[in-house]
Amino acid sequence: MRKHYIEKLVSMMGETEFDAILVCPSEELKFFAGFSPMMCERFQGLFIKKDGSCFYVCNLLYGDEIKESFNHEIPVYTWFDGDGMTNVVGKILEEQGLKGATVGVNSSAQAFNVLEITDKCGVNFKNAKPLLEEVRIRKTPEELENLRKAAAIADAAFEPTIKFIRPGLTEGQIRDFMFEQMSSRGGTNLWAIVASGPNSGFPHYSGYDRVIQEQDIMVLDWGCEYNEMQSDISRTVFVGDATEDQRRIYELVDRAQLASQEAAVEGAWIPDIDKAARVVLDEQDYAKTLINRVGHGIGYMIHEAPDIKECNPRRLERGMCFSIEPGVYLANVYGMRIENIVAINEKGETEILNKVTRELTIIK
Amino acid sequence: MRKHYIEKLVSMMGETEFDAILVCPSEELKFFAGFSPMMCERFQGLFIKKDGSCFYVCNLLYGDEIKESFNHEIPVYTWFDGDGMTNVVGKILEEQGLKGATVGVNSSAQAFNVLEITDKCGVNFKNAKPLLEEVRIRKTPEELENLRKAAAIADAAFEPTIKFIRPGLTEGQIRDFMFEQMSSRGGTNLWAIVASGPNSGFPHYSGYDRVIQEQDIMVLDWGCEYNEMQSDISRTVFVGDATEDQRRIYELVDRAQLASQEAAVEGAWIPDIDKAARVVLDEQDYAKTLINRVGHGIGYMIHEAPDIKECNPRRLERGMCFSIEPGVYLANVYGMRIENIVAINEKGETEILNKVTRELTIIK
Repeated sequence: MRKHYIEKLVSMMGETEFDAILVCPSEELKFFAGFSPMMCERFQGLFIKKDGSCFYVCNLLYGDEIKESFNHEIPVYTWFDGDGMTNVVGKILEEQGLKGATVGVNSSAQAFNVLEITDKCGVNFKNAKPLLEEVRIRKTPEELENLRKAAAIADAAFEPTIKFIRPGLTEGQIRDFMFEQMSSRGGTNLWAIVASGPNSGFPHYSGYDRVIQEQDIMVLDWGCEYNEMQSDISRTVFVGDATEDQRRIYELVDRAQLASQEAAVEGAWIPDIDKAARVVLDEQDYAKTLINRVGHGIGYMIHEAPDIKECNPRRLERGMCFSIEPGVYLANVYGMRIENIVAINEKGETEILNKVTRELTIIK
Repeated sequence: MRKHYIEKLVSMMGETEFDAILVCPSEELKFFAGFSPMMCERFQGLFIKKDGSCFYVCNLLYGDEIKESFNHEIPVYTWFDGDGMTNVVGKILEEQGLKGATVGVNSSAQAFNVLEITDKCGVNFKNAKPLLEEVRIRKTPEELENLRKAAAIADAAFEPTIKFIRPGLTEGQIRDFMFEQMSSRGGTNLWAIVASGPNSGFPHYSGYDRVIQEQDIMVLDWGCEYNEMQSDISRTVFVGDATEDQRRIYELVDRAQLASQEAAVEGAWIPDIDKAARVVLDEQDYAKTLINRVGHGIGYMIHEAPDIKECNPRRLERGMCFSIEPGVYLANVYGMRIENIVAINEKGETEILNKVTRELTIIK
């Protein structure tokens, strides 16, 4: 158990309506417990109560494994398939004084289980994802150092990948090459979006089959984990050549990204950071093609607080770490995106963690 | 859209409290819509209303992709990051007449999103996983045929794997070999548990690092997908030799599995099928080491209805398909399991889909 983080959550819980927080298997559980087991449809999770005590509930099937993982530090209650989940969990929650209580849930809690418990056991659940994100929204110097290393591993994949890409390869072959580059440098939990030609118009494109062609625009978006911290970077590159129009739009996206990045200083109002990129894109009527938030927080998860978006009314604080990634997206036509991870570091400076060139890159 | 299945769900919804069902990305969505997109933390899902009409809600980021995937057959509403999810979703649900309604959720709905919508938009959510499973609990002849093929692909991996296993290999190397065997025969969505030595005592062991040693007991549990249908089989094998004690317990597990398998006839009371294996294990006081249900339904998902367990009071019907997989588990010591998929087929016969030998297998 990582008692420091549990204590921090408990101290923050005092100011909320929550009597306890339920953390199901996820990065969030790993953050508090130091491990996270696999989760199937059987209900399981760690309950952290506002008095600071904790207990875990899981199916009997996982009981011995979970007890070992916790070094027998906290009570682990088990329920047996044959008895029915809510019959047993109801008694456990009553024993723990949580009957009628308000319990906050993390991001991986399954609605069907939580709703079944509400129905049968008289416990009220509410969304506690924002509270759990608040606990880790200001990164420690050690977390910042691992974020820098995770960014450096992703960065190092760029140059070799640019040399590797050529017409005739599939998106999947390029993704696999990027995986090797990050893995060989110590990255884990690898992921990459390789969106070529018309696929680049979908910000979260998930295919891998298209064959790269001359004149393709390619959006590359990739990252990995290092010591529990994530990286996430995007660059847009051009195969063979870029037209005048493409150069003009690339320059616009580049300026939009820089505008938000430069607005991201300690104390800045987050909606203003989001707006900065949109104002630049609007010069050429492209603001409407930026169909998502300008950025998202990053750390233990690829997406965590703070979101850089209009409806997030707060100021940047020291230790916050997030992406700045405006883009232009025309579905099935083309897309362009430039993304860096930015931290408000220990000294309160705006530190750009990614060092990869943002110059227009043509693959010859 | 697979209208036949939607109509079936809608006809069954009439007898429930549900005004609509929310199906988030999952195999369940693929079942109804023919596709399932990636899901991030942004709320999205298909709403199927009791009047038979449908609509989809997703983030603007995914709007174009989702509209295309639905061939523009149903309304797709989008919400923009900058506006906040519940602000937009509340209006959509009101427009669709679902304010104050009771909406059932599928197995992949995220609790934090659903609870946030309850809080801000005045919609009541409840668990609809059992209803969604009921829609497909009796497999069609075509589904049964694909279940047979999926089982045959898994079966075909056994003999080559037995020849491949030798002391010195890691569990992960054996898993990868099994993947190749299934993949080369047309299986997709491959998975395998390779639990050796003391790891075999954990029914859902998820590690891969241990090196196989002489005298190891190994539980192999593997499967794949074929035409949307899943397979799932387990065998226990012995490296080098098996002791007298091990042979005695293997014979016990074998008889326990056969007892439940033979009890699984059309019209059988499900708790009795679960009990049959336990009665055999109890002969040698091993019933308490069977720490989970005797089986689970299988089809579009590896785990779906009907569960073969004491608290599932219903009878087996034609078309039901499920595992029978009793085991003996002693955490960190050893475990043994034999698992077959069983169907009550078109003729009402008990058909064992897996054909792999259940004779005690020694790897020399």
